[in-house]
Amino acid sequence: MTELKNDRFLRALLRQPVDMTPVWMMRQAGRYLPEYRATRGQAGDFMALCTNPELACEVTLQPLQRYPLDAAILFSDILTIPDAMGLGLYFEAGEGPRFRKTVATAADIDALPLVDPERDLTYVVDAVARIRRELNGSVPLIGFSGSPWTLATYMVEGGSSKDFRRTKQLAYNQPELMHQLLDKLAQSVTAYLNAQIRAGAQAVQIFDTWGGALSHAAFAEFSLRYMTRIVAGLIREHESRRVPVIVFTKGGGQWLPRLADSGADCLGLDWTTDIGAARGLVGERVALQGNMDPAILYAAPARIRAEVAAILAAYGRGSGHIFNLGHGITPEVDPAHAGAFIEAVHELSPAYHRPPA
Amino acid sequence: MTELKNDRFLRALLRQPVDMTPVWMMRQAGRYLPEYRATRGQAGDFMALCTNPELACEVTLQPLQRYPLDAAILFSDILTIPDAMGLGLYFEAGEGPRFRKTVATAADIDALPLVDPERDLTYVVDAVARIRRELNGSVPLIGFSGSPWTLATYMVEGGSSKDFRRTKQLAYNQPELMHQLLDKLAQSVTAYLNAQIRAGAQAVQIFDTWGGALSHAAFAEFSLRYMTRIVAGLIREHESRRVPVIVFTKGGGQWLPRLADSGADCLGLDWTTDIGAARGLVGERVALQGNMDPAILYAAPARIRAEVAAILAAYGRGSGHIFNLGHGITPEVDPAHAGAFIEAVHELSPAYHRPPA
Repeated sequence: MTELKNDRFLRALLRQPVDMTPVWMMRQAGRYLPEYRATRGQAGDFMALCTNPELACEVTLQPLQRYPLDAAILFSDILTIPDAMGLGLYFEAGEGPRFRKTVATAADIDALPLVDPERDLTYVVDAVARIRRELNGSVPLIGFSGSPWTLATYMVEGGSSKDFRRTKQLAYNQPELMHQLLDKLAQSVTAYLNAQIRAGAQAVQIFDTWGGALSHAAFAEFSLRYMTRIVAGLIREHESRRVPVIVFTKGGGQWLPRLADSGADCLGLDWTTDIGAARGLVGERVALQGNMDPAILYAAPARIRAEVAAILAAYGRGSGHIFNLGHGITPEVDPAHAGAFIEAVHELSPAYHRPPA
Repeated sequence: MTELKNDRFLRALLRQPVDMTPVWMMRQAGRYLPEYRATRGQAGDFMALCTNPELACEVTLQPLQRYPLDAAILFSDILTIPDAMGLGLYFEAGEGPRFRKTVATAADIDALPLVDPERDLTYVVDAVARIRRELNGSVPLIGFSGSPWTLATYMVEGGSSKDFRRTKQLAYNQPELMHQLLDKLAQSVTAYLNAQIRAGAQAVQIFDTWGGALSHAAFAEFSLRYMTRIVAGLIREHESRRVPVIVFTKGGGQWLPRLADSGADCLGLDWTTDIGAARGLVGERVALQGNMDPAILYAAPARIRAEVAAILAAYGRGSGHIFNLGHGITPEVDPAHAGAFIEAVHELSPAYHRPPA
């Protein structure tokens, strides 16, 4: 194995000393980059890009060629698992993800196969291996999956939803069916993330994008429980290194102590949370990732820099912070503004990691 | 003045003893009721209904004829103020609210007039007076307004938004302009709520629907500051009674201590917050309103009852709780389920208000 040249990201995830705060951006390989749009145009559509390991590798590496990011993240979609279960994922222009088949009844859920990633999602496993090889030890590679609850919402609704009416109806009226669905998803996600780790992912993130739509009690029952089960089933050491796990529940800022019980090494924070208060609550147990409002990237570079400074100051001295946005970078952002953001983190953060004079 | 026969709601807002937990529902006069749809059909469209005091009064009273609710809330829209400022509010089928004119520049903001509600929103003031008269002391009447930040998002975006890109761009790049806009809105909202109080509203609620889209720091600067200013400017005693103020920031569960500093008598909670934990944090200073997930109303009555029981138990013994949903009731709900909800609150809550044996 090639030696890792920049392990700042992995060290911060384990709250080990670093020289500066590592930084990456959710959706950093994305539509805000003209080179991404060019490759996507060449691929045809989004799914063609996801399922082509060579092109997926190419777009994964694009932001790293532009910016001194401290991690790469596999380019893929969170909905590959339901697609591999046979639901037929597709994207309509301006519409977001859709499924040709949805899940509504006991028979539908019974009929869903468990996913064997090496057989059913070869294109992802191949992409991970290829990206890892091409990175050549420059920075670590992050693998990822959607959380069972998040995947379930798309499978039941057939796409995005404003209020998750059908999903919640199933959860509240037939909880045993919902648990059967979530159990299949948790088994499949565990296998999927382990396959990514075996193929070369050096950290993994679970995206619980819609966990925050649940009530305080329902979150524990329908989302957290299954993420905890997944974390317990993951390969936690590979290539003689700890494989850190990040759990990110968007809108989960009120649930950090429970999320820290999940066994994750790091919790992702959206921008509604005060990262200093979060560190006070759970900073002895987990690292924290986040948490700048992606909309700040629409502002002028000086304003971006001021926001970075404020978040660094709120987290305070020492390791355990991975700088990121509180959600994915949006297509309308000027790439120069993303550059100003990353530069600000690297320029302003060393002061927080130097030993006191 | 007619004596108030049921003052449970007003007493709970002031944390005074009650016989049972009062209950009302946000958007209780709404599309889930066939009688509402009939009146709306008769009016023509939504704005025609809002601007006709007689019909607005009729739909306000409809849910009270069906259910033993403990409060009525003025039927109106949160966007009447920007409409009165000249932006031209309209609704397109299935689209949500839109404005013919938007606000983008210093000149746009300069040109916005302050609203004089008695002159510019006579239809609202007249509706309040009429509803109050027709209620004839049965239950108290709630007046309301959108928060300045929430109104500003619609004025800048021209309608609903997913990420509030333009509004945040204005706030982050030209904060002095945004503050000028918010200041005009805060003055207008204060005058508007005071006019409602003079016309007969016995409590008022500020709907900060989009405050939760802001970061921890930006919320204080762009939303909370102006709500605090409004609360300080309200008529707090009328007809020899305290006029309680409810502040509801959807998605504001992490900010309750700061919200309690606003001077409000009561904070609204969405369903992501554990109401027991919230009471522990701020229950000595404010009453709490909420917080059942409206999606529970899609479930069977027995499930609805179990959820009511869990929320009552989480809040615990004593006054200071107004039962409500964590957001407005949705059009697809079966009216019988809303009835089961209200019945459950009244049947299960007296045990929490009896003196210990």
